[in-house]
Amino acid sequence: MERERRLEEKLPRYLEALRELVAVPTVSARNQSIPEGAKAVAAIARRFGLQADLHYFDGVPYVIASHRAGEGRPALLFYNHFDVQPEDPLELWETPPFDMAERDGKLYGRGVCDDKGHIIVRFAAYELLAEEQGEVPLNLAFLMEGEEEIGSPHIREFLRDKADLLRAKGCIWESGGVTSRGRPELYMGMKGVMSLELRARGPKMDVHSSLGPIVPNPLWRLVDFLREIKDADDRIRIPDFYADVLPPDERDLQALSEGLDEMEELRESLGLEAFLGGAEGLEARRRLFFEPWVNVNGIHGGYGGEGSKTVLPSEARAKLDIRLVPDQKPEVILEKLLYYRYKLGYSDIEIEVSGGIEGPAKTPLDDPFVRLVADSAEEIYREKPLLIPIAAGSGPMAHFRDILGVPIVGCGMGYPGSRIHSPNENIRIEDFKRAILHTAKVIEKFASKS
Amino acid sequence: MERERRLEEKLPRYLEALRELVAVPTVSARNQSIPEGAKAVAAIARRFGLQADLHYFDGVPYVIASHRAGEGRPALLFYNHFDVQPEDPLELWETPPFDMAERDGKLYGRGVCDDKGHIIVRFAAYELLAEEQGEVPLNLAFLMEGEEEIGSPHIREFLRDKADLLRAKGCIWESGGVTSRGRPELYMGMKGVMSLELRARGPKMDVHSSLGPIVPNPLWRLVDFLREIKDADDRIRIPDFYADVLPPDERDLQALSEGLDEMEELRESLGLEAFLGGAEGLEARRRLFFEPWVNVNGIHGGYGGEGSKTVLPSEARAKLDIRLVPDQKPEVILEKLLYYRYKLGYSDIEIEVSGGIEGPAKTPLDDPFVRLVADSAEEIYREKPLLIPIAAGSGPMAHFRDILGVPIVGCGMGYPGSRIHSPNENIRIEDFKRAILHTAKVIEKFASKS
Repeated sequence: MERERRLEEKLPRYLEALRELVAVPTVSARNQSIPEGAKAVAAIARRFGLQADLHYFDGVPYVIASHRAGEGRPALLFYNHFDVQPEDPLELWETPPFDMAERDGKLYGRGVCDDKGHIIVRFAAYELLAEEQGEVPLNLAFLMEGEEEIGSPHIREFLRDKADLLRAKGCIWESGGVTSRGRPELYMGMKGVMSLELRARGPKMDVHSSLGPIVPNPLWRLVDFLREIKDADDRIRIPDFYADVLPPDERDLQALSEGLDEMEELRESLGLEAFLGGAEGLEARRRLFFEPWVNVNGIHGGYGGEGSKTVLPSEARAKLDIRLVPDQKPEVILEKLLYYRYKLGYSDIEIEVSGGIEGPAKTPLDDPFVRLVADSAEEIYREKPLLIPIAAGSGPMAHFRDILGVPIVGCGMGYPGSRIHSPNENIRIEDFKRAILHTAKVIEKFASKS
Repeated sequence: MERERRLEEKLPRYLEALRELVAVPTVSARNQSIPEGAKAVAAIARRFGLQADLHYFDGVPYVIASHRAGEGRPALLFYNHFDVQPEDPLELWETPPFDMAERDGKLYGRGVCDDKGHIIVRFAAYELLAEEQGEVPLNLAFLMEGEEEIGSPHIREFLRDKADLLRAKGCIWESGGVTSRGRPELYMGMKGVMSLELRARGPKMDVHSSLGPIVPNPLWRLVDFLREIKDADDRIRIPDFYADVLPPDERDLQALSEGLDEMEELRESLGLEAFLGGAEGLEARRRLFFEPWVNVNGIHGGYGGEGSKTVLPSEARAKLDIRLVPDQKPEVILEKLLYYRYKLGYSDIEIEVSGGIEGPAKTPLDDPFVRLVADSAEEIYREKPLLIPIAAGSGPMAHFRDILGVPIVGCGMGYPGSRIHSPNENIRIEDFKRAILHTAKVIEKFASKS
């Protein structure tokens, strides 16, 4: 109660810190304002009583904020990122994306949820505890990067380099969420991801479309190749694509079978009559979390304006992201795709990795750290959290697991209407507050259990 | 010789008239400056000694310029258009598209070839003859529209309405060309065309691509449907698509077998190692002129910027144009496509006709008017023209044939490097002059033969 009261008191300061961070347009896809973002994060961390250092790795800035309780004390790691997705289409934002706005108990702005809001949540939790306890009896490290939205291309090497600083017995992942009525969701894994750009070339300049019967059209060429990647029944056709897929075990299925109404709610919020292939309930949930997939992010080529234009374009591009589950390996899948391209005779289509490559990762549901975070959530939210064995999204989790050997849990304040990566990204202020209290509870429990 | 001398003298005036016409940005796809274009054409026609009237049909302006020699005199019709294709991509133009520029014996600008240059060619031919002969002993009508590049949606009704004014014994079609070394090409037919826009819809807003395994992606949906339209071996899969196709007859094949080196030149000018499906020589020529086809003009949806964005878009569009040969009927093909869409379960993909619908047309190679135009060409160019039974391009020719019952021949001044519909559209001034002389010869011969 006392902690909640103090949180209420300090809330305006926390929101002000978040506004300050949102205002830095750290769009990593455009390599925009990343050093400025790192400096802003470090400055805010210091204001919250943490030590903060900038580490440049290969020219890329990372921030490590920390609290040292002393040698031998247990260590907890927090991973977050201060870069954001591009804000386009700009015209669909009700208020400017980098100027945080409050409306109806919600905060709007690019990054308020993914992931700047979570940075402030964690700093705030530390500050509340430090004031209460004088000294938090744990070693805490908050690692924050500026390349998460482009696939964290340097974090693997950075983790290797700084493993000693970051070693911990538990890691809280960058974000997480609650259901629309506020039930917390924890996730213990992530899919892997690999972003690709495909480019097909035709005649050396755009030509009149009447030449179609004899001039290779790069748009048809792309379509012809894409049809080889996914069949009409939504199975991926790359040979052996599914070979290393681990299906969910009994405990996983048990966890998935809770929260089926979430799926209906999601379907309705997207304005869909049915999910892909008519999947419902547990099967929809299984596909979402346990199926690997190839998504088309964009196709662009030829005329896209009003009316018609009888053109056959010189070039066409498609962007794909491939989502992988344990134990698929991105490098192996890429090899398979390239060999498949060669075998089918599509070597003229260029394939380029357009972002970092991340493997899938999963912490077992019976890990004690999972229980600790779940128990803390239950105390704050007064309800058992939903457990998501593997989140649908991706991140550099596999590197943390492989290099630091740490159990990892994602939790946070997103809700189904948060619109992360979309216009009008937002959070509910109530979720923000509860996420702070939950994080404080995790730190407190972690210290007392150790 | 005398006529050529006078042409040389007047050339600067003709070029000035062309510059004036090019300067009006009559982009029909954007419904831009069409009334202004009509007025400019009429004003120029009057300056060349023709009568010129604007006719508004359903609000759409047409220009009929004419010379009346009197009741009972033979009549010759010229069809042209003063609208042009959109100028984009603007950045690829070396000089501004609507500001005609002369470089190295060539004229550059949107419409210098297609089709404003041909309008001036015909006016100039009339003027040269009128000066020579005092009075041209023919009834001449020059019909010019401003909707050709969007499929001439009103011309059928307009022709019906004005058939009495336009009735003629021969019709010179809007444009035509020469080979790169200057051999004239006449064409006696055109493919039909139908422009369509396909639109697929997914979730009601763009969402994170991690939802891919359960949320229908409109880009995948489009690809899935497009794969049903054309197979990987470049056959159109719409059932009975080829049912009404008339193959070329012996005379057609004979005509096609001349000018095979044109095909090699075309292939090289496009920077292609091979034509589609490896077609060569006569087979490439047969496909170009006698094969119906479905071309993709553009596909647009999702992220198209730098780097990657993990998005699943709400909507995606494809633009198609379907090219038809005699005796295919566009309305029948559209019916077949819509039924195919329904049968395959793709009724969620909207299909909209995004331009006018035009049928294929063909004047037999042994028509006397064809011989007259060919003989005239031989006199001017000192070489037998290549005869193209059906041009690869499309236009409202079928309406002229059906409503006016007139034999039609296309001839003009385009050359393989003209880049019509593309940046840096251009003509060679020598071709411009010869086209004027050829047109004058056609009028002269037509008058003397009748």
